[in-house]
Amino acid sequence: MTRDEVTEMVRDAKRKTGKTWAELAAAINPDVSPIVITCALLGQMTLDKAEAEKACATLGLPADCALLLAEIPYRGSIPSMPPTDPLIYRFYELVMVYGTTFKELIQEEFGDGIMSAIDFDMAMERQPDPKGDRVKLSMSGKFLPYKRY
Amino acid sequence: MTRDEVTEMVRDAKRKTGKTWAELAAAINPDVSPIVITCALLGQMTLDKAEAEKACATLGLPADCALLLAEIPYRGSIPSMPPTDPLIYRFYELVMVYGTTFKELIQEEFGDGIMSAIDFDMAMERQPDPKGDRVKLSMSGKFLPYKRY
Amino acid sequence: MTRDEVTEMVRDAKRKTGKTWAELAAAINPDVSPIVITCALLGQMTLDKAEAEKACATLGLPADCALLLAEIPYRGSIPSMPPTDPLIYRFYELVMVYGTTFKELIQEEFGDGIMSAIDFDMAMERQPDPKGDRVKLSMSGKFLPYKRY
Amino acid sequence: MTRDEVTEMVRDAKRKTGKTWAELAAAINPDVSPIVITCALLGQMTLDKAEAEKACATLGLPADCALLLAEIPYRGSIPSMPPTDPLIYRFYELVMVYGTTFKELIQEEFGDGIMSAIDFDMAMERQPDPKGDRVKLSMSGKFLPYKRY
Amino acid sequence: MTRDEVTEMVRDAKRKTGKTWAELAAAINPDVSPIVITCALLGQMTLDKAEAEKACATLGLPADCALLLAEIPYRGSIPSMPPTDPLIYRFYELVMVYGTTFKELIQEEFGDGIMSAIDFDMAMERQPDPKGDRVKLSMSGKFLPYKRY
Amino acid sequence: MTRDEVTEMVRDAKRKTGKTWAELAAAINPDVSPIVITCALLGQMTLDKAEAEKACATLGLPADCALLLAEIPYRGSIPSMPPTDPLIYRFYELVMVYGTTFKELIQEEFGDGIMSAIDFDMAMERQPDPKGDRVKLSMSGKFLPYKRY
Amino acid sequence: MTRDEVTEMVRDAKRKTGKTWAELAAAINPDVSPIVITCALLGQMTLDKAEAEKACATLGLPADCALLLAEIPYRGSIPSMPPTDPLIYRFYELVMVYGTTFKELIQEEFGDGIMSAIDFDMAMERQPDPKGDRVKLSMSGKFLPYKRY
Amino acid sequence: MTRDEVTEMVRDAKRKTGKTWAELAAAINPDVSPIVITCALLGQMTLDKAEAEKACATLGLPADCALLLAEIPYRGSIPSMPPTDPLIYRFYELVMVYGTTFKELIQEEFGDGIMSAIDFDMAMERQPDPKGDRVKLSMSGKFLPYKRY
Amino acid sequence: MTRDEVTEMVRDAKRKTGKTWAELAAAINPDVSPIVITCALLGQMTLDKAEAEKACATLGLPADCALLLAEIPYRGSIPSMPPTDPLIYRFYELVMVYGTTFKELIQEEFGDGIMSAIDFDMAMERQPDPKGDRVKLSMSGKFLPYKRY
Amino acid sequence: MTRDEVTEMVRDAKRKTGKTWAELAAAINPDVSPIVITCALLGQMTLDKAEAEKACATLGLPADCALLLAEIPYRGSIPSMPPTDPLIYRFYELVMVYGTTFKELIQEEFGDGIMSAIDFDMAMERQPDPKGDRVKLSMSGKFLPYKRY
Repeated sequence: MTRDEVTEMVRDAKRKTGKTWAELAAAINPDVSPIVITCALLGQMTLDKAEAEKACATLGLPADCALLLAEIPYRGSIPSMPPTDPLIYRFYELVMVYGTTFKELIQEEFGDGIMSAIDFDMAMERQPDPKGDRVKLSMSGKFLPYKRY
Repeated sequence: MTRDEVTEMVRDAKRKTGKTWAELAAAINPDVSPIVITCALLGQMTLDKAEAEKACATLGLPADCALLLAEIPYRGSIPSMPPTDPLIYRFYELVMVYGTTFKELIQEEFGDGIMSAIDFDMAMERQPDPKGDRVKLSMSGKFLPYKRY
Repeated sequence: MTRDEVTEMVRDAKRKTGKTWAELAAAINPDVSPIVITCALLGQMTLDKAEAEKACATLGLPADCALLLAEIPYRGSIPSMPPTDPLIYRFYELVMVYGTTFKELIQEEFGDGIMSAIDFDMAMERQPDPKGDRVKLSMSGKFLPYKRY
Repeated sequence: MTRDEVTEMVRDAKRKTGKTWAELAAAINPDVSPIVITCALLGQMTLDKAEAEKACATLGLPADCALLLAEIPYRGSIPSMPPTDPLIYRFYELVMVYGTTFKELIQEEFGDGIMSAIDFDMAMERQPDPKGDRVKLSMSGKFLPYKRY
Repeated sequence: MTRDEVTEMVRDAKRKTGKTWAELAAAINPDVSPIVITCALLGQMTLDKAEAEKACATLGLPADCALLLAEIPYRGSIPSMPPTDPLIYRFYELVMVYGTTFKELIQEEFGDGIMSAIDFDMAMERQPDPKGDRVKLSMSGKFLPYKRY
Repeated sequence: MTRDEVTEMVRDAKRKTGKTWAELAAAINPDVSPIVITCALLGQMTLDKAEAEKACATLGLPADCALLLAEIPYRGSIPSMPPTDPLIYRFYELVMVYGTTFKELIQEEFGDGIMSAIDFDMAMERQPDPKGDRVKLSMSGKFLPYKRY
Repeated sequence: MTRDEVTEMVRDAKRKTGKTWAELAAAINPDVSPIVITCALLGQMTLDKAEAEKACATLGLPADCALLLAEIPYRGSIPSMPPTDPLIYRFYELVMVYGTTFKELIQEEFGDGIMSAIDFDMAMERQPDPKGDRVKLSMSGKFLPYKRY
Repeated sequence: MTRDEVTEMVRDAKRKTGKTWAELAAAINPDVSPIVITCALLGQMTLDKAEAEKACATLGLPADCALLLAEIPYRGSIPSMPPTDPLIYRFYELVMVYGTTFKELIQEEFGDGIMSAIDFDMAMERQPDPKGDRVKLSMSGKFLPYKRY
Repeated sequence: MTRDEVTEMVRDAKRKTGKTWAELAAAINPDVSPIVITCALLGQMTLDKAEAEKACATLGLPADCALLLAEIPYRGSIPSMPPTDPLIYRFYELVMVYGTTFKELIQEEFGDGIMSAIDFDMAMERQPDPKGDRVKLSMSGKFLPYKRY
Repeated sequence: MTRDEVTEMVRDAKRKTGKTWAELAAAINPDVSPIVITCALLGQMTLDKAEAEKACATLGLPADCALLLAEIPYRGSIPSMPPTDPLIYRFYELVMVYGTTFKELIQEEFGDGIMSAIDFDMAMERQPDPKGDRVKLSMSGKFLPYKRY
């Protein structure tokens, strides 16, 4: 069994239970960001043993799947880059259009280094707006300076 | 003269004036997000005529440059994709790791559609943290539903 | 079961029923553009629950398929880009030849922004012509201006 | 002198004259679609000798440019594919999302063959709409059936 | 069943019958170029209903295959480009070496336009030669001029 | 000086003289296929010393160019593959659609081997046709069998 | 059954018999270079009917495989280029480093043309050397001059 | 000055002197394989100081070039891979067709390891043959076994 | 059975036994670097016969797997390059950022040549650090000078 | 002036002074790893103001270069990936062969996370060895665990 197969099984099971990702995340571990749990169910993050077993129970997956959900995955969720799906492509486009601006402004503020994509946190919420609701994404990553030794 | 040449001239002039992007943006138009002004100076957004002339005056660029800074650019700031620069690459990596999660959670909340990268706003700030300061990015894009006709 | 497998099942079933896409679309929902219904049957758009069930009934597909036809797909219908199929390639070629012209003329008329591919509508019809009938495509997409915040 | 250099000269001259593409097209040949004239000025179509000379006169280009504007170009207007510019990318995305639908519906109506991208015509207009004006594109291409000999 | 699977079944069946492509083409429809029939059996052209049924009978394929052989295929016969097979690569090489020459000479003779790859005919024959026999290919495609509207 | 620069000089000179490729080829060496001479002027074949000098004289190029026109070029005439120019792309498409058919039919007739792209000859002519004139290309390449030693 | 499947069956059978490629080649046809026989068993060359049957008998493969081993394969043995395997990559590297040198020296000696990869012969042997044994590869390919007609 | 510019200067100078690579190599250092000297002149190997100065004197290059000819280059002689030039492509094709055979036979003889492309030697000679002269290449590379520590 | 299938079986078996790579390596051969044994279990190195059999016994794999584990693999462990997994990508990034520095400093110290990736050794250890533990990698590869013959 | 131009000027100046990278690094700042200084001179790291001025003085570069040497560069030192230069390619190959092993062993020891390429240190030294001296590289990067919020 591979992690991709588990992801496929998760999607099949979710479809049949009719639960949302938010409901699944709350059932698996309500104390952790639902983004992290969803991301793990989609094969990109790791659940701990208890969460993985809870996930299998909630979704009705065979117990073996828990071993894989608790294993560190080979990351990379997009079938091919650039992404063909329009929703995901818009994020890719943001990197192309704003990439050099991110670099200039972050490094102007923090010096030479990067924003971590590992020590990283994110939240998504609906921002009501009379001209059309908006998706609000907040990201926060630790700044890591280039060190000299 | 091409827009890429103007971007190169902006970088050369900025280096000599010693001004920061934040200072340049404030000088050009303090009422607009400095991200937008920086992005325009880097060849990815459009300044209006007054801003473009202010930019040329502030940076000591020939007046012709104002015409180009006020022109809609052919966008795409990254020399090649995937980006070779580590700071920018981390954003690309976020798309690869979190891309399918973004898709599931946004569409679960909003239905079938996308977060606009055009009707889009962003802010960057320093988040002090005893374990190491963090880069905080807030993004907000209008949700655009797939319409049927 | 994946959406690609459903698309394959749709094609197999359509072949056996001998129905056209136009007939299928009319059976599934006559009030919606047949382009949208066909596009959904080919795995690129979403049917609502009633349509999805109608589609399964019309094509003789197992009921499970309805869940997938009503699910938002990971879009991207072309096996690889550039498209190897001559009919589809001609559209790709139009983008390469007319792309910069589209950009100049749309932005000259509307300002800085894009034509939406999401709030988008399309029709195809046969245009009789003594020198050879023509394919007429009408596209209409909402103009989305770059906003500043 | 190459055609790319002429295109660059056209853009420089246009910027200085302050004329729109529509005005240039009307000055060069009011009896032809402005899309065709703009497309030629951008290096993708051919002007006839009189038009090319008119273009040089209108834009103040050296007479040599007329020879190149009247020459059949090596077509391909996009610096690299997929296009990095968001406006042009949306057309590329339409090919990826609607490509197989175009193929099915055109061939269902016309039989095995393609819509010509050569014997092809196009118009763009603004479609006023209270929810936001729309870009309307009408395309018409001769259907070319696969022939057997 | 997909067209690729039918192509594989055709190859398996042909191997077992020991028939040549020429013999198969003659059995399926002796009045059409064997290139067209072979091309259809390889998944790149369309047979009419009678031919498709004849093909199934001749090769001992299940009747279902006839539906697919009569369906317009998604074209593109080469597993990946550039072709790794030396025989096919030589044609690719001809395009790279002679491509600009084709363009110059055809457009010098015919004006701005293309040679159709759709309204197209081809023949292959052995040209005996004491220094080693030669492959003779004759191609004829309708010239399609760029039209202005 | 590079061969690409010579090709550019040839194009510039040809444009100013107003001569056709056919006229140039006849002036340079009327006993050789004009395809070969044109191909050499475009940087893909070699002229002998006398032809190269004749070419320089006819086009008014500096004598140095003759050295380069007589030198074996690094072949490859297309700026990037797949070709973006529609006329040249159609040949690329023929390889994709007919490639496996070429392979099967040539090897069925000749055995295991290839059609040479080196010991190769070609002619192009106009084929008048009431439904639209046709481009006729005749190619002949020596068959080269795979040898065993 | 495809040729790739036969190659997999050959590898499985060889592993179980414990025979070397040299022993297999000697058993199949001792009068032919073992490189050619090995190459055919790996799906890149053609065996004649007797050899193919001998191969099946020696390896214990089903008789059907003989038909495929005697069929001209679609060549290309490397899963993807550049090769990821270090031994094979070194040859790819030789082409990158020595490629232009090969071109200059071969064409200086022979004139304009190529070394055939079809009328081609090769041998590999161990060259004992006190500083470490060496792999000796001798290649010989017919020179094919560009012909003019 | 870059090494690529020196290579261009070498080619220009060689063309004007009319010397062959063999003559240049003999003049620069007759005790070393002319392949190595040619390869260095083409920017892929290193000359020692005396050779580099001899090369500049022989070709009439400015003395500065000697510094670059004696410098270790960034290797990679082919403008892009796969090579578009037919002579060089044939070597690339040999890797694709014979690559897995090389791997099997070398590793069968020598065990797990590679043939060095660094401790490597090569010779090219004309092999007269009544059916057409042949290019003979002899390569010898040290076998390097994978070591375990 | 292919080596990839064996790698998958190793991963499945390891997950069920709950053993670490370090434990497996110690069980298979405690006298060899665990990096080498792990690398072989992941399909990139070769085990000797006794180790392979020990591996099968320890992991409970069918005896056939030992034949494959003792066979020289087609190397290349990353599904696609650049690696999508963040841990592995960081090494790829090191090559992009430090690659030219490695080249300059190694060749300044050793002369023209390379660091072998074949006669190569590596160790990984945890380096305790109050600011966060560090991964320490030590690599040692034989320097191989370019030889001249 | 761009950073690439400064890198070219550094290489030109170094060649003329005849200094080694080690000597340059010692002159610029003897208290920092010479790898870091060399890396900065090659356009991949940042010097502080004093170091940058010292670098310009040592190399005889115009004072303007100091501004660029002290600026954070757009990183990525390799002209194209995979690297064509054999020395650098060997590191790329190590990633392909050992990449999954790195991942398994580091994550087995440290948990889910990565080795930082930013908080990273490296040393290179010559390891004398009677069988041929070895290149020893020691790398140490902070382990960064995936954090949950």
